[in-house]
Amino acid sequence: MKFSPLLAELISSLTCLPGVGNKSAQRMAFNLLERNREGALKLSSVLHNAMEHIRHCERCRTFTEHPVCEICQHPKRNSSGLLCIVESPQDVVAIEQTSSYQGMYFVLMGHLSPIDGIGPADIGLDELEQRLQNEPIEEVILATNPTVEGEATAHYIAQLCQQFDIGASRIAHGVPVGGELEYIDGNTLTHAFSGRRKL
Amino acid sequence: MKFSPLLAELISSLTCLPGVGNKSAQRMAFNLLERNREGALKLSSVLHNAMEHIRHCERCRTFTEHPVCEICQHPKRNSSGLLCIVESPQDVVAIEQTSSYQGMYFVLMGHLSPIDGIGPADIGLDELEQRLQNEPIEEVILATNPTVEGEATAHYIAQLCQQFDIGASRIAHGVPVGGELEYIDGNTLTHAFSGRRKL
Repeated sequence: MKFSPLLAELISSLTCLPGVGNKSAQRMAFNLLERNREGALKLSSVLHNAMEHIRHCERCRTFTEHPVCEICQHPKRNSSGLLCIVESPQDVVAIEQTSSYQGMYFVLMGHLSPIDGIGPADIGLDELEQRLQNEPIEEVILATNPTVEGEATAHYIAQLCQQFDIGASRIAHGVPVGGELEYIDGNTLTHAFSGRRKL
Repeated sequence: MKFSPLLAELISSLTCLPGVGNKSAQRMAFNLLERNREGALKLSSVLHNAMEHIRHCERCRTFTEHPVCEICQHPKRNSSGLLCIVESPQDVVAIEQTSSYQGMYFVLMGHLSPIDGIGPADIGLDELEQRLQNEPIEEVILATNPTVEGEATAHYIAQLCQQFDIGASRIAHGVPVGGELEYIDGNTLTHAFSGRRKL
């Protein structure tokens, strides 16, 4: 005998959380039972609600419990003519935290990866094509991750933009602000030099 | 704007888990929404069930969804005459994993700590007293933690046992098996020397 059946089930269910193994799950289960049953009941109901109601925004594909998310409903953003393409809703959050961008988003929920069988339709590029066709978009800002797949996806979308005669730009790659040159990897330094700007 | 209201609520609810801060909670929320909605729904229902039904065993105070836990119901263990006192249900699990102990348990769910206002009644010592009085217990094994509070609790219970003429023993403190002497702290070494046994 180790745990009572229900306790064992609770521990194994907690391991569905990313980064939580068996030992952490045990610690969580005992901690909740001993100290925070109310918090756990709240988590249970919010978890259920969220999984039932949070879907993708019909326009930008980010997570929201409404048919269209708050950013897409924003009139000023809608008339900005800027569309930023990112890979995940977390990227939207990161960009929003800077408060420096006031345009719209389109969330791919992934990147092109033929080796995993992820093609243009899987990352919503047909929906993006329709938006490029029907909306008054002036510039597409490609903010996919600086990985091989992210770059390939950015190039693919840039070509798509060309078809509709819409300008596409890629966010700058270079030395992070506050970083020290001697610790920056060579690849990033190369990008920083080739992307240099006149003062 | 950062998150949709429901998503923000999910993230803040996830921080009720021990060791989970805001950033980990975000990662968990997005991961569940993107990849494991079924697991999350399962977790939600198990969490609710566990918090509603898991109570303390009426005899040993460990966590169980039954009135009396499996160990306390075991006839062989009941007739063993051994009662092991531990501080938490996790300690029971750790001891059970060794399969070397076949007696009963009593779980204090804490330790004596006058500074925090935790007295004998708060760690169930009145229930323990009744068991010592009414059950044919031959030996009480004190397996509280080797901390100041744990030692104080062990001494208190040892005195209780004396009143009922029941032998009390303390688990051995010394060098952990597989440890190297040079890395063991002085306090533990002192214990190991004073607790030496004839070969």
